[in-house]
Amino acid sequence: MIKVGVLGATGNVGQRFMQMLENHPIFELEVLGASSRSAGKKYADACYWYQTEPIPEEYANKMVQTTDPTDKAYEDVDIVFSALPSDLAKKLEPEFAKEGKLVFSNASAMRMENDVPLMIPEVNYDHFEMLDIQRENRNYDGAIITNPNCSTICAVITLKPIMDKFGIDLVNITTMQAISGAGYNGVPSMAIIDNLVPYIGSEEEKMQTESLKLLGAIDKENNKFTDANFKIGVSCNRVSVIDGHTESIFVKTTEEATPEEIKKVMDKFDPLKEYNLPTYAKPIVIREEMDRPQPRLDRDAGNGMSISVGRIREDPVFGIKYTALEHNTIRGAAGASVLNAELYVKKYL
Amino acid sequence: MIKVGVLGATGNVGQRFMQMLENHPIFELEVLGASSRSAGKKYADACYWYQTEPIPEEYANKMVQTTDPTDKAYEDVDIVFSALPSDLAKKLEPEFAKEGKLVFSNASAMRMENDVPLMIPEVNYDHFEMLDIQRENRNYDGAIITNPNCSTICAVITLKPIMDKFGIDLVNITTMQAISGAGYNGVPSMAIIDNLVPYIGSEEEKMQTESLKLLGAIDKENNKFTDANFKIGVSCNRVSVIDGHTESIFVKTTEEATPEEIKKVMDKFDPLKEYNLPTYAKPIVIREEMDRPQPRLDRDAGNGMSISVGRIREDPVFGIKYTALEHNTIRGAAGASVLNAELYVKKYL
Amino acid sequence: MIKVGVLGATGNVGQRFMQMLENHPIFELEVLGASSRSAGKKYADACYWYQTEPIPEEYANKMVQTTDPTDKAYEDVDIVFSALPSDLAKKLEPEFAKEGKLVFSNASAMRMENDVPLMIPEVNYDHFEMLDIQRENRNYDGAIITNPNCSTICAVITLKPIMDKFGIDLVNITTMQAISGAGYNGVPSMAIIDNLVPYIGSEEEKMQTESLKLLGAIDKENNKFTDANFKIGVSCNRVSVIDGHTESIFVKTTEEATPEEIKKVMDKFDPLKEYNLPTYAKPIVIREEMDRPQPRLDRDAGNGMSISVGRIREDPVFGIKYTALEHNTIRGAAGASVLNAELYVKKYL
Amino acid sequence: MIKVGVLGATGNVGQRFMQMLENHPIFELEVLGASSRSAGKKYADACYWYQTEPIPEEYANKMVQTTDPTDKAYEDVDIVFSALPSDLAKKLEPEFAKEGKLVFSNASAMRMENDVPLMIPEVNYDHFEMLDIQRENRNYDGAIITNPNCSTICAVITLKPIMDKFGIDLVNITTMQAISGAGYNGVPSMAIIDNLVPYIGSEEEKMQTESLKLLGAIDKENNKFTDANFKIGVSCNRVSVIDGHTESIFVKTTEEATPEEIKKVMDKFDPLKEYNLPTYAKPIVIREEMDRPQPRLDRDAGNGMSISVGRIREDPVFGIKYTALEHNTIRGAAGASVLNAELYVKKYL
Repeated sequence: MIKVGVLGATGNVGQRFMQMLENHPIFELEVLGASSRSAGKKYADACYWYQTEPIPEEYANKMVQTTDPTDKAYEDVDIVFSALPSDLAKKLEPEFAKEGKLVFSNASAMRMENDVPLMIPEVNYDHFEMLDIQRENRNYDGAIITNPNCSTICAVITLKPIMDKFGIDLVNITTMQAISGAGYNGVPSMAIIDNLVPYIGSEEEKMQTESLKLLGAIDKENNKFTDANFKIGVSCNRVSVIDGHTESIFVKTTEEATPEEIKKVMDKFDPLKEYNLPTYAKPIVIREEMDRPQPRLDRDAGNGMSISVGRIREDPVFGIKYTALEHNTIRGAAGASVLNAELYVKKYL
Repeated sequence: MIKVGVLGATGNVGQRFMQMLENHPIFELEVLGASSRSAGKKYADACYWYQTEPIPEEYANKMVQTTDPTDKAYEDVDIVFSALPSDLAKKLEPEFAKEGKLVFSNASAMRMENDVPLMIPEVNYDHFEMLDIQRENRNYDGAIITNPNCSTICAVITLKPIMDKFGIDLVNITTMQAISGAGYNGVPSMAIIDNLVPYIGSEEEKMQTESLKLLGAIDKENNKFTDANFKIGVSCNRVSVIDGHTESIFVKTTEEATPEEIKKVMDKFDPLKEYNLPTYAKPIVIREEMDRPQPRLDRDAGNGMSISVGRIREDPVFGIKYTALEHNTIRGAAGASVLNAELYVKKYL
Repeated sequence: MIKVGVLGATGNVGQRFMQMLENHPIFELEVLGASSRSAGKKYADACYWYQTEPIPEEYANKMVQTTDPTDKAYEDVDIVFSALPSDLAKKLEPEFAKEGKLVFSNASAMRMENDVPLMIPEVNYDHFEMLDIQRENRNYDGAIITNPNCSTICAVITLKPIMDKFGIDLVNITTMQAISGAGYNGVPSMAIIDNLVPYIGSEEEKMQTESLKLLGAIDKENNKFTDANFKIGVSCNRVSVIDGHTESIFVKTTEEATPEEIKKVMDKFDPLKEYNLPTYAKPIVIREEMDRPQPRLDRDAGNGMSISVGRIREDPVFGIKYTALEHNTIRGAAGASVLNAELYVKKYL
Repeated sequence: MIKVGVLGATGNVGQRFMQMLENHPIFELEVLGASSRSAGKKYADACYWYQTEPIPEEYANKMVQTTDPTDKAYEDVDIVFSALPSDLAKKLEPEFAKEGKLVFSNASAMRMENDVPLMIPEVNYDHFEMLDIQRENRNYDGAIITNPNCSTICAVITLKPIMDKFGIDLVNITTMQAISGAGYNGVPSMAIIDNLVPYIGSEEEKMQTESLKLLGAIDKENNKFTDANFKIGVSCNRVSVIDGHTESIFVKTTEEATPEEIKKVMDKFDPLKEYNLPTYAKPIVIREEMDRPQPRLDRDAGNGMSISVGRIREDPVFGIKYTALEHNTIRGAAGASVLNAELYVKKYL
């Protein structure tokens, strides 16, 4: 068993990390790290637990620790999962990496750094190779590996098999994102009941830049990432859904493809099957019904780790369009980090 | 005063017609037509009235009539507004036109007929010219003038000033549509609370074909409509909003345009101002806030007749993208028909 | 294994029955019975499955059967669970009982018959004793055992330990009930978003009469049920919640009791523990937080079989008040029938 | 015209005050007072305006002032309406009263003071008589007049005609309250979508104590208020409704009354008709439909100033039960204060 910690354990994504690490076959959650407001309290007292499953008993009475990497609590910990707010992540994640920890981060702070892998295991795990450069550049004993924004993951997992087989020239996405993505207090009910908000701060920019890094390559001569070679435009909306980001995706492929062909490559996409990772599920589940996927009905597919895709059909402008759905706090956040860590352990430890 | 009737008066759009015709300065609502289930009852007993304003008193006790154009009730009526279901509209609207009535229809049945104007007054009122052909072709004493699908209207009003000034090559739209568009019983609550449905039957096809007819021209040599010369692709979704369709719209203009220029042509777009039509409002209201328009806050702009547009910005693929919002049962349905009729009366009667 | 059937298998409660019978240790679901519209089709084609877990694979391809008890399909079946609409239940349930089947019914049709047990296993399983009379009266080889209305179950389970210890003089309940209780198409979204409906047909009457039968006794001399000896008044409301009925309950006990004492008797209430029934869970779970129970967070307690109770406190009029919450389609419907059947099997077969 | 100010002008109730004072025939809104964070800014910049009507133009560009009563801005102001948070109200309202202002307050801070009228004009305007005592006790040149909690107003307006005619022994109320009552940021969307919260801090206590003061009398010998002589118990819930508190109310009258008699006294209740107050509407509107009142459909009755009452029926425990509905931020907050002020002006100025 590898001992791990969670940074930002009391928030919404932090709680999801704890659910995913409960009874995990290779990770043992040792340290629940949170702000000084919570540190020193019992976890059950420090956080408002608002998941539909009760708080895992083994953690309820655990003492919350600080997020100081030199704290003795972290001594035996090899891996920390970070659900820190961006500003704190920028400061603390490098400190943990310097102390020799492997930081698997859901925060956006380090994602676009040129020596930090931004990773979806099914898409670009070769980007782990950048870690040697990162350690050299930054004098880390540990390392930082990030996962993308929730809405990026949903799209990119579905784009990967298309790109591999047919190439991609243009991508257009309009998102309809769940309220849980903004944290428990993020969206006031008066803002979203009988309403939607056609704006999520920085979300469009993240999706546009992260997608190109994820589907790009490592330029080994210059030791940096190079972007994928297509254009992508995005419009982001918040809708009255608790969990589950839905995306209307349009793709112009380089080589022409029929909806049937697209469906086939998506359905067959299963690149990590051989690794038997505990959190892994078939990345894409195809729905044949004309009115699916729907967030309430399909977000839990593959224990929340599968993207559900439906309505693959022709489009007059792009050629292909479809609807994709992701559980944003599992596949799009905590599960993404955990899966990154599981693959890393399998390959390198 | 011109005497008018409403066909399908008990449904959701029918109720909106009645609200818009109450105290109308030139139309006097004389006949409330509905199915044989309702005919013969008092209106207040025949329908479940679920608007937030109470049922207009002058109509509550009116006797509901049939939808038979030869019924004596329609004798003095010059105009009928049709909120009939599509199959009934296909049968009954031509019968009313033959009986000499001007039929202003919100139904989809006749929209794509090659001698029937599909009209948004601000966009293509020159299509009225087709009525001579229609009367000749069909032996009508009256005429049929249709308005488009709710979600088409929202988009096309915003596209018109762009096309006029810069030309349009490509359009991409993802809609997030209100439940009222499906009628009172159309969307079960179990289908839409904590959920969305990424499918609305025939909606994408309607938007794609209707937009090209609306922004097209009359081919006077061949006496038929010709489509506008751009490509358009659409993805339609139902969301948990009562009234107000929101659309993420992407446009590739023929001649390059900045967001600021697009905003300017939209803001100045006011083609029917001179006619002083009772139901007319400035067609496009620009919102400057980064998170607007929002359905609950902006659907009532211009008494529900203005499209609210916000977030006009650059897009990596199309050049321009923005968000548009429309009150779907007013501007997108009852108000669309009434405005068509008001303009016809002003120009031809 | 005892072979069982489900009548009304395609509806909302029918689907819940199938979920509860999947992998059941003593029941084997053999026959899915539904109306002639569905009979002869594969189950997956006959019903719109809208649970968040996928349709159990073993049932998806099963052929739907009729609801005719003489149909050969029912030959080996000993127990049928009925999720029929009330009018059909009234006709068909007696026919199944005559054919020798044990009918465990969630329908309201037979509940108040004077020789039919209305049962919550934790509350009044001695009412099974009425079955001898029933068989004699009605010439049944089988029998009919009903479970109460969903909202009745929630209240009565919490009242039982109070009555046993302190006696009850007066009860007042206001319910806030979930939309799933009305079936998938029961509540239009336009009726309940940003809204509530202060009326559910016959619900108040059911709660008021069923509670007294459930907490009443068998009058052995006259072979009939006698009502419990307290007064109960109810007001029922439908709210915008998918699953989970919440009830504000006020109780005047015969013998004075403090909130602390009430909490204690509820917490200790566990009358069927010894039977080890597969579907059984601790009947009442006490929540200590001041703002719980909440339907979204607590409805799944005890796999949906536990009532969550919180806010037990003093009331100036009644003495005691509290909030109770029940998963209405599990504990309040399918699970109620299944638990009745499990106990019957344990005690009599 | 009487010059008035609003304290706490940027919040949800503050915005409602501004809507009610726009174009008011006797009040002229002169000063928009808010915290130091807002003071000095233009109103449109200082607040996030989230009403469905646009921000009144005449106020959008007005400079926000402090809430310091000695500020020159308040020099010509005779009346201030207070939408301050409770702690600030406790400090500032007496200061304004000392400076000679009439303070009409929606805050709870001073409501239960023994020389401060807690008033619903239709119920107890004779409590104005306490103001002489108040001025003497507190050395005020002005005065403080409070209105009750939103949910109290709804209930007490319906209880008043019952008490006057039949007397009241016992009252039981369960509320289902709208999210707007907690302010724009008060209820996170994750707390209320597909959910309800069976707790609102201090709300039950407020309803229980305020109701007795409102329906009580002035003990002229001892110069204090005496409570009404009945018992009342309340349970409060927050539900997924934007505006509109719904209450299930049970009443045991002293003298027996039929539902028909109760309906009659409510319908005839119209005590302030003769004063022609600008904001006044018929206090109680009776709904005859079996499923009304409903918040979305009925909250705007009487421009939000009428309580809608329906389902008046017999109850086995109390004798009478019914459902009442109030627009909580109009009748239950801003409108309540404005009506108090209008009546005071009519009677004393």
